[in-house]
Amino acid sequence: MAKINSNYTKLQGSYLFSTIAKKVNEYTQNNPGKKVIRLGIGDVTRPLPGTVIAALHKAVGEMGDEETFRGYAPDLGYEFLRKAICENDYRSRGCDIEPDEIFVSDGAKSDSGNIQEIFALDNRIAVCDPVYPVYVDSNVMAGRTGDYDSDLGAYRDVIYMPCMGENGFVPRIPEEIPDIIYLCYPNNPTGAVISLDELQKWVDFANEKGSVIIYDAAYEAYISTEGIPHSIYECKGAKTCAIELHSFSKNAGFTGLRLGYTVIPKELERQGVSLHSLWARRHGTKYNGAPYIVQRAGEAVYSPEGKREIRELVGYYMKNAAYILNGLKKAGYEVSGGVDAPYIWLKVPDNMSSWDFFDHLLADANVVGTPGSGFGAHGEGYFRLTAFGSYDNTVEAVDRITSM
Amino acid sequence: MAKINSNYTKLQGSYLFSTIAKKVNEYTQNNPGKKVIRLGIGDVTRPLPGTVIAALHKAVGEMGDEETFRGYAPDLGYEFLRKAICENDYRSRGCDIEPDEIFVSDGAKSDSGNIQEIFALDNRIAVCDPVYPVYVDSNVMAGRTGDYDSDLGAYRDVIYMPCMGENGFVPRIPEEIPDIIYLCYPNNPTGAVISLDELQKWVDFANEKGSVIIYDAAYEAYISTEGIPHSIYECKGAKTCAIELHSFSKNAGFTGLRLGYTVIPKELERQGVSLHSLWARRHGTKYNGAPYIVQRAGEAVYSPEGKREIRELVGYYMKNAAYILNGLKKAGYEVSGGVDAPYIWLKVPDNMSSWDFFDHLLADANVVGTPGSGFGAHGEGYFRLTAFGSYDNTVEAVDRITSM
Repeated sequence: MAKINSNYTKLQGSYLFSTIAKKVNEYTQNNPGKKVIRLGIGDVTRPLPGTVIAALHKAVGEMGDEETFRGYAPDLGYEFLRKAICENDYRSRGCDIEPDEIFVSDGAKSDSGNIQEIFALDNRIAVCDPVYPVYVDSNVMAGRTGDYDSDLGAYRDVIYMPCMGENGFVPRIPEEIPDIIYLCYPNNPTGAVISLDELQKWVDFANEKGSVIIYDAAYEAYISTEGIPHSIYECKGAKTCAIELHSFSKNAGFTGLRLGYTVIPKELERQGVSLHSLWARRHGTKYNGAPYIVQRAGEAVYSPEGKREIRELVGYYMKNAAYILNGLKKAGYEVSGGVDAPYIWLKVPDNMSSWDFFDHLLADANVVGTPGSGFGAHGEGYFRLTAFGSYDNTVEAVDRITSM
Repeated sequence: MAKINSNYTKLQGSYLFSTIAKKVNEYTQNNPGKKVIRLGIGDVTRPLPGTVIAALHKAVGEMGDEETFRGYAPDLGYEFLRKAICENDYRSRGCDIEPDEIFVSDGAKSDSGNIQEIFALDNRIAVCDPVYPVYVDSNVMAGRTGDYDSDLGAYRDVIYMPCMGENGFVPRIPEEIPDIIYLCYPNNPTGAVISLDELQKWVDFANEKGSVIIYDAAYEAYISTEGIPHSIYECKGAKTCAIELHSFSKNAGFTGLRLGYTVIPKELERQGVSLHSLWARRHGTKYNGAPYIVQRAGEAVYSPEGKREIRELVGYYMKNAAYILNGLKKAGYEVSGGVDAPYIWLKVPDNMSSWDFFDHLLADANVVGTPGSGFGAHGEGYFRLTAFGSYDNTVEAVDRITSM
């Protein structure tokens, strides 16, 4: 008799964003006349930049011609893309990363869910609270978290690192020593950033204790403040303790195109085994590469014209972020984030719960956001809005919220 | 201190096709003048059909326009594609499958590697021997196989089902009862097929014992013989015991485009839990959907013109298969497969080992194939050639082999 993976039964409800989608669908079906504005899931809305579209058309043309057709991609990704990533995202910032330390994938969500597989099941993980649910849920599925304690609103064997307003939403190093530490800066969901000095402390701690940091840099393109690190490899010694995840979704609008990459330096070893070789083996066995046409689209992002368009795209969304931030502030809300990140994190007024505020906002302003409690117990009482809507919709949403 | 997943250290060598690629690269670097013909990895060589190219260009255009841009895809895949799959691959064959039992993905390799995750670690798996390496390796990584016994050439806790010439490369039902049974027909690597009656026996066995069959139908488009099942759901009762995997790689040439799907009927339960809901949860948590443009390309495969082009494409490769089969037969080789499958399975002559024959063929005919022993202990003494080359190369390869 086949037995199911009973770890799945420890998961709480459905995946956060699936729940939201269901609630919104229900509302729109029951209220067909209402125009609902979605500032929830963090999906981009602007079309792909012109250079990306041109690169896609060109690559599609190649796939239709016998001479230029491409079958299976190389395991790690095409060299043209790995070189472009290496040059633009690392060497230009003084980070000593090689192209063959970069693994191209179909996105940071897959990588952040799959990366835990190369580690033993008895590793203790530490996550920020609130946190992007995939880090925790993928570890629940694997059996690393223990049972869910509904009184605590937490899994028993996970080390939660509270991120509160008091500490600028950057956690303190926990007393209990974790084996694997998930960090995400600029942060999802709080929109907070971490300084180079603060991040260096984590790197030093991990090197001292033998922990591995999984650093999610999906939002680095939104950093505008000087001195905020774009990569963990800007820290000394990060190559012996850190894995870094990147996405093309939020800088270049690839949420529907799917492209990301993971960096594992070759000197990163534990128990004498190279984590690079383990991840290479996983890629080779369970994955067959990102589509050639999408990798060409990724390459175009690094062209001079592509970079200009990306800056414009990021600027567009950051104008939204500023509008939300200032509008809500003026209306008396307690808000943070939204400066070096596309997320605005607001304190829910009147001691409402996050989900009550979600329902209230949906019903009374027809605006969709994300309840902070969906990201963890310490997200309760908070609410996330994203800057990824159109400008007009963003303005309308803020006006509706502030006049509720 | 972070600990690695020590199951990875039980894996034998590198992934088969990575090893072959390395050997071939070495040879071509040392022998720059030689024209090497690759009939090894099973990668297609014909360009994408015209309707697929047109659909891609159209979808790319939509991604560049604010009105038609698409972000995150629905978890299970776009309805337009799931409906097309349902209608054409199932209902037209009398299989009662619903669109929401179909999960669109980036390919059958990912799905066949990931599907084991929804099962407990103490399930006993059964695989054909020889077998597509991903089924076994993904279970090794998870810890379901025990250690490798190099004397046996096998993992201690896996039930191997020998597929030999004597039984037409279809295994007998094993005495020990497996929890999970991997079957692949038309078969990779042997090119064998299974009759509806034979397959029904497996379905009945699984239903009786509570086993789950993971049925890989990646090559079903190559079936031309009447009465050979294209889907396991042609068997009575398969919906309570079988998961089916499909690929767009081999019928439509999507190896570099990446698209596949997995079917899990809603009534398939074990221990009172729906496997459909477990896989839906995995998709929702660790995956973000296949690219919109690629899903549109998949839809085009099912258009009347697309179907015509696919038949032509399959016909092209099957002409190659026939040429290999007949050419080698005439030259005295013992060969099978190649009629309802794009693989030709040949007995290595003169009691050579599979790898010795690989080296011999590479050095003396400059032809790359796949050593049978790379697929399992019972593949030793066999060799796989694929029909996915160009016709001219295939003819030249066969002429070179037969005149060695």
